[in-house]
Amino acid sequence: MEFLVRTENLLPVDTSDEIREKLRAAERERAMELREAGILKRLWRVPGRNATIGLYEAVDPAALHDALTSLPMWKWMDVSVEALAAHPQERA
Amino acid sequence: MEFLVRTENLLPVDTSDEIREKLRAAERERAMELREAGILKRLWRVPGRNATIGLYEAVDPAALHDALTSLPMWKWMDVSVEALAAHPQERA
Amino acid sequence: MEFLVRTENLLPVDTSDEIREKLRAAERERAMELREAGILKRLWRVPGRNATIGLYEAVDPAALHDALTSLPMWKWMDVSVEALAAHPQERA
Amino acid sequence: MEFLVRTENLLPVDTSDEIREKLRAAERERAMELREAGILKRLWRVPGRNATIGLYEAVDPAALHDALTSLPMWKWMDVSVEALAAHPQERA
Amino acid sequence: MEFLVRTENLLPVDTSDEIREKLRAAERERAMELREAGILKRLWRVPGRNATIGLYEAVDPAALHDALTSLPMWKWMDVSVEALAAHPQERA
Amino acid sequence: MEFLVRTENLLPVDTSDEIREKLRAAERERAMELREAGILKRLWRVPGRNATIGLYEAVDPAALHDALTSLPMWKWMDVSVEALAAHPQERA
Amino acid sequence: MEFLVRTENLLPVDTSDEIREKLRAAERERAMELREAGILKRLWRVPGRNATIGLYEAVDPAALHDALTSLPMWKWMDVSVEALAAHPQERA
Amino acid sequence: MEFLVRTENLLPVDTSDEIREKLRAAERERAMELREAGILKRLWRVPGRNATIGLYEAVDPAALHDALTSLPMWKWMDVSVEALAAHPQERA
Amino acid sequence: MEFLVRTENLLPVDTSDEIREKLRAAERERAMELREAGILKRLWRVPGRNATIGLYEAVDPAALHDALTSLPMWKWMDVSVEALAAHPQERA
Amino acid sequence: MEFLVRTENLLPVDTSDEIREKLRAAERERAMELREAGILKRLWRVPGRNATIGLYEAVDPAALHDALTSLPMWKWMDVSVEALAAHPQERA
Repeated sequence: MEFLVRTENLLPVDTSDEIREKLRAAERERAMELREAGILKRLWRVPGRNATIGLYEAVDPAALHDALTSLPMWKWMDVSVEALAAHPQERA
Repeated sequence: MEFLVRTENLLPVDTSDEIREKLRAAERERAMELREAGILKRLWRVPGRNATIGLYEAVDPAALHDALTSLPMWKWMDVSVEALAAHPQERA
Repeated sequence: MEFLVRTENLLPVDTSDEIREKLRAAERERAMELREAGILKRLWRVPGRNATIGLYEAVDPAALHDALTSLPMWKWMDVSVEALAAHPQERA
Repeated sequence: MEFLVRTENLLPVDTSDEIREKLRAAERERAMELREAGILKRLWRVPGRNATIGLYEAVDPAALHDALTSLPMWKWMDVSVEALAAHPQERA
Repeated sequence: MEFLVRTENLLPVDTSDEIREKLRAAERERAMELREAGILKRLWRVPGRNATIGLYEAVDPAALHDALTSLPMWKWMDVSVEALAAHPQERA
Repeated sequence: MEFLVRTENLLPVDTSDEIREKLRAAERERAMELREAGILKRLWRVPGRNATIGLYEAVDPAALHDALTSLPMWKWMDVSVEALAAHPQERA
Repeated sequence: MEFLVRTENLLPVDTSDEIREKLRAAERERAMELREAGILKRLWRVPGRNATIGLYEAVDPAALHDALTSLPMWKWMDVSVEALAAHPQERA
Repeated sequence: MEFLVRTENLLPVDTSDEIREKLRAAERERAMELREAGILKRLWRVPGRNATIGLYEAVDPAALHDALTSLPMWKWMDVSVEALAAHPQERA
Repeated sequence: MEFLVRTENLLPVDTSDEIREKLRAAERERAMELREAGILKRLWRVPGRNATIGLYEAVDPAALHDALTSLPMWKWMDVSVEALAAHPQERA
Repeated sequence: MEFLVRTENLLPVDTSDEIREKLRAAERERAMELREAGILKRLWRVPGRNATIGLYEAVDPAALHDALTSLPMWKWMDVSVEALAAHPQERA
């Protein structure tokens, strides 16, 4: 099943560039793994914000939770999840 | 998977008692079928309102959608759904 | 550019089945045309509601507006649009 | 009577792993006691968040308050409580 | 247990004076019965609005629900209920 | 005149137990004085939260303000006040 | 004591000009009486809306309620009231 | 001074095409007059909605109110106005 | 033109009494100057809060902004401004 | 395409004057570059707040995002963006 996931990244402004870069690289790497696993399907930026909207696929909300909390930035993120129902136009 | 479902019943106040009773009886009957099918697991009233909170189980959001829209009162209901993730304390 | 579009369908409950079916068929037909034109890319239902979340692509907000208002149900729909920025992970 | 209880855990991100684990273990232990006492009946995670939704039973709101404040994480939690009314379908 | 109950009276503006007066008299009579039964303890008006704030006592939310829905104006009222916990300063 | 007063206590979580207890004792003492003066008439806890709902009586909003700000915890409290109008049912 | 009072006038759009004018004239007349009685002290329009913000003075919320409900337009108005406390800078 | 003005057009869906077109033409004509008078400076559509965002200039809020209420669609519009302060970067 | 101005004072709770008193005295002095200049016309307290509602007059929003930012407490204040339109009843 | 952009500047109150001035100068310089590039078209202050409303033009939301994040103050700003659709009155 698919989920719409919003994240706001609340990493403190005074985080050192070094830590920030390390986190970003690790985040990107983990995101790529989630893409390869077919869990992260699309990702957009909310323009002007350190925030994203993503389309995820997981067997159930618990599996999605595990995927999201595996992101290195997760503990600084405010996340909200919306379960999506397949639309009859796309239920082939 | 489990869902928390809130409903507000917006049936117009001036609906005749006859129609209202017919709808209520049909609603109750369909709800009982959903219970027997293991889809509707618990149901509460929001005190003071013509509103309910329910615990549902369905294979995915589309199946839940089909169950909810099968309720005779559905077209007068404002419904909101929240997907629940199993908690590790209960994932035995 | 891509947009996230939410719709709530507020067609009055007492609309006759005939009109409702006619509108639904016309809506589906127009949606299919928008798919073929590459404007409507994905569509989901908000579980429990007569509402959708869609992923659209259009050259600009005015073009998106024209696409949305071309839907036969549009005048009964409450629509909200969110412009999405491509994420660096996907800007290859 | 039953209550729906939402919690958001606001434990600071920079809490040491040691303290965090100690608190989690203590929290789990206390939660298990509340389960055995029939106070905590069900617990879910809000997917993507350090947050829960729980179904509790207590003789009155003051007893529920005492149960919730007995949780070791309570002082970092933002809690909201909703009293549930038994639904006629379930009042046997 | 005690509850704080807010009501907004949404009786249509164009209701005839005759019906309105009949409803008001019946409402007042039923409210007086609830006072005598110890269920309605205090009642205030929200200044400027056709709205009230009341302090109720009932054995549980279902009993409160039954009391509120016994009011002749109930079906035109938007009601919200908040369960109150006894404060230690008053639990003597 | 009567007022409904909500308070959320935002005393930092890391306040030492000693200071916390001193403040609680002083708070309780001042609350008792306000009760004796007929200003604080009822007090409830919002279940699950470090928050209260109180029924106050004061000659005017400025007198209420002075009473509330005399509470030792006041500077950590988020307070909201609602003026109540006597209801005709109780205006004897 | 003084109150800040907001009103939104929800008179239906299709009200005939004749009734609308009669109501407006009656409203203005009653407002003038409230000014002369020292109850209505200032009145502004919310620009762009059929809405006002007013500064009222009354002995208590019940007296304010009586003044507001004496306005001929009251039953079509959505009103919200905020009790104001005299500021020490102005308590001479 | 400049104002940001949002409008939502709530003209009933079942308004006849004839009336709708007459209103639209009149609206457009009046808008053009406001442009020529230097009152309406820019106008955008909120994509997907029958709504606009406009940049207006008027000597004061009362003059803006008079301009907005001169629009033939005004009585069906929900309008909100925000006063803008010149920014030092543009105060030459 | 007149403005309704709300302020919430967010000065940290742990500010020393000395600094707090210095700021308060300076604030009061500047407020008095704004009164004498005819800019600050009325000031109220929001009962129970470290917050005010004020009636200001200034030639335009930029002049109001300059007046508000001249207050020594301004940088700790959360301020919201509402432009008021003269009401025909008071446009003599 | 054009965007309406709101910013709230959350730079901590205790930032030194030196850093603050350096940031402001750099912000102004970068803003001027964005004006010259035709990206920042208008800028207003929200009266009473350290906040702005701006009218921007960019080829798409990603380009707008890049422009906004190039502002030296960006990491302290809470930004929200609204995509604007050209209005037929201005599509010449």
